[in-house]
Amino acid sequence: MSSRTETTFAPPVMEARRWLEGAVFPPDRPLLNVSQAAPVDPPPAPLRAAMAEALDDPATHLYGPVLGLPDLRAELARSWARHYGGPVDAAEIAITAGCNQAFAAVIAALCTEGDEVILPTPWYFNHKMWLDMAGVTAVPLATGPDLVPDADAAAALVTPRTRAIALVTPNNPGGVEYPAGTLRAFRDLAARHGLRLIVDETYRDFDSRTGAPHDLRGNGPDPHLVQLYSFSKAYRLTGHRVGAVIADPGLLAEVEKFLDTVAICAPQLGQRAALWGLRHLDQWVAGERAEILDRRAAIEENMPRLAERGWRLMGLGAYFAYLEHPFAEPSDALARRLVHEAGILALPGTMFMPADDPAGARQVRIAFANVDRAAIADLFARLAGFDAALASPLATRGASN
Amino acid sequence: MSSRTETTFAPPVMEARRWLEGAVFPPDRPLLNVSQAAPVDPPPAPLRAAMAEALDDPATHLYGPVLGLPDLRAELARSWARHYGGPVDAAEIAITAGCNQAFAAVIAALCTEGDEVILPTPWYFNHKMWLDMAGVTAVPLATGPDLVPDADAAAALVTPRTRAIALVTPNNPGGVEYPAGTLRAFRDLAARHGLRLIVDETYRDFDSRTGAPHDLRGNGPDPHLVQLYSFSKAYRLTGHRVGAVIADPGLLAEVEKFLDTVAICAPQLGQRAALWGLRHLDQWVAGERAEILDRRAAIEENMPRLAERGWRLMGLGAYFAYLEHPFAEPSDALARRLVHEAGILALPGTMFMPADDPAGARQVRIAFANVDRAAIADLFARLAGFDAALASPLATRGASN
Repeated sequence: MSSRTETTFAPPVMEARRWLEGAVFPPDRPLLNVSQAAPVDPPPAPLRAAMAEALDDPATHLYGPVLGLPDLRAELARSWARHYGGPVDAAEIAITAGCNQAFAAVIAALCTEGDEVILPTPWYFNHKMWLDMAGVTAVPLATGPDLVPDADAAAALVTPRTRAIALVTPNNPGGVEYPAGTLRAFRDLAARHGLRLIVDETYRDFDSRTGAPHDLRGNGPDPHLVQLYSFSKAYRLTGHRVGAVIADPGLLAEVEKFLDTVAICAPQLGQRAALWGLRHLDQWVAGERAEILDRRAAIEENMPRLAERGWRLMGLGAYFAYLEHPFAEPSDALARRLVHEAGILALPGTMFMPADDPAGARQVRIAFANVDRAAIADLFARLAGFDAALASPLATRGASN
Repeated sequence: MSSRTETTFAPPVMEARRWLEGAVFPPDRPLLNVSQAAPVDPPPAPLRAAMAEALDDPATHLYGPVLGLPDLRAELARSWARHYGGPVDAAEIAITAGCNQAFAAVIAALCTEGDEVILPTPWYFNHKMWLDMAGVTAVPLATGPDLVPDADAAAALVTPRTRAIALVTPNNPGGVEYPAGTLRAFRDLAARHGLRLIVDETYRDFDSRTGAPHDLRGNGPDPHLVQLYSFSKAYRLTGHRVGAVIADPGLLAEVEKFLDTVAICAPQLGQRAALWGLRHLDQWVAGERAEILDRRAAIEENMPRLAERGWRLMGLGAYFAYLEHPFAEPSDALARRLVHEAGILALPGTMFMPADDPAGARQVRIAFANVDRAAIADLFARLAGFDAALASPLATRGASN
């Protein structure tokens, strides 16, 4: 048997969860789970109250339009226009059941068997998985030590089968906030070759920069630009599955076919929650952002003690610190041992890299959104105290092979 | 540009909704919308109350396991075992964001580019759309005047690229409840050729037969069988997107990759609602079924007045009556005129047929779940009074071309 799914790997997050089976976490060293790029607290109480109220509206329980609630599309268009400048029409918005689905729908609308999409590495594994399942080749674009992709390097990878370049900023897993100039250069590259630039802005609400992070929407619609968004992080709605595509209506007519068939519509309660959030939670999200930025600062403050042990901070931003570790042991083995020997669950760089790229073996992603300052200090103390070569019978075995 | 989505057609339900634009429905002849295979009322009050309560549980707002809530998988396994006989394990259950997604995930797990899946016609259009988008050839299996597919006829269509046969019973759009012997014959055909038999049982809760509608699960797991289910109809949860795949765990490990990438998880509130429904709503669903069976009886009672005008009832069951109309005008044009001239929105057979099969032009689907006895009488009176050839300037124009 050979199938679409057999061309790709098992979900990394589910695999990492399985590493916890059988692990023991003593009370004085509880599990520090920094594997998940997701809030672990519920939405704020007023939003929960609004959701309970929405259950009284019969329409909340019924199918809605495939491309989303008209009010939500209009409200996100207004919000998008405020944030990025330039006009945005509701017809440019499609609501999806989460941002992964937004990516899948856009790829289905743009690509067919044997087409190519350029992804900077380290990449977001669900992007790679979807391309595999869609019969589309993910063309890796190596980034330098700062994890920022280079448009000129990307230009060299464009072939007649290239359909799109997909960027994530602020980046997952790298944390890096791409400079506006980088995005502009990629947009111009896409325009030159008749491609789409897909920009996944799932983490944009936690960007450390104020105002628009790029000027790609400044002049209104751009036929070469596709933006993706998630309501999951800003309003803590991960369980309700709401995301969006912002693109030209012609592309969205294609996206509609995919969404109709794979989802029929995004969940109605999540859509109403997102709408309520857009109307009422700007200040609350600003507070959330301030907290994330404070945790980011705590990472920077704690970094020197790790740097002394040979660790290097490659990227930091949004929910993520992306680190190079100092050990000979590859990161996928290291990550498993960190669970048992340090009580830390973090994803190894190998999960974000092509199998033939050795860089992933040196890297670890820390998703720090759910650990406060005290836990971050604890995390870094554990990492600083972890000596892979000495502590590990596995590493010893490895050295003798 | 050529892409996955461009290989298929626009969502029929959305297209039909657009026919309503500009239509006028006088108070004495309001719109009879028989296009939708979905409840239009909210879930029962106790379920809504349980959902409001579930919002107080933080976990309702967070990501859950890709294959679904363990409690829901276990409860559906118990329910499935009771209904079909034979043991069912929770590991055989995957929860999806609706039954369309269940189909998409299974096809992704079974097929790749150029593979073939056999679908009886008339087919469920979202099945055809997904196969198109997956690069899989939908091989139409014509059915006879009773709309029941024949396993021997299907056998003649099997090629080395065939991966599955997908049946819907009770059938959408045909309404027909497939005899147990038909399903057994298809299962044996699948086993003989190493295929999977996919049985979409979205409407099983409204089957007019009591007990198990087939014996395919009677001996426990069958590696050739994949069942699909939806919680949308039984509990009126269409807006919350919950469905299921019942299949062997090996296939579900493949399904998990697809779901992780396209959905991450099914909406958590919908899953909790489905769980509550399984535990508390058996009696309520029995009442819903009785009401649907009564409406079905009303269709039978009203049918003679249409039969006099040359209409023929091809199939009747679940939510659907499938009719052959007596007019020369093709059903897609007829359906548009029925909106304006009779205040009826129904889907034409052309939406359920390959473009090159002329049978669809003679057929119309009536989704009667949302029309009560009085409205059914009104519907049949309007249809009986509708004379396509005489009433229509379009038809006149058509005749002169």
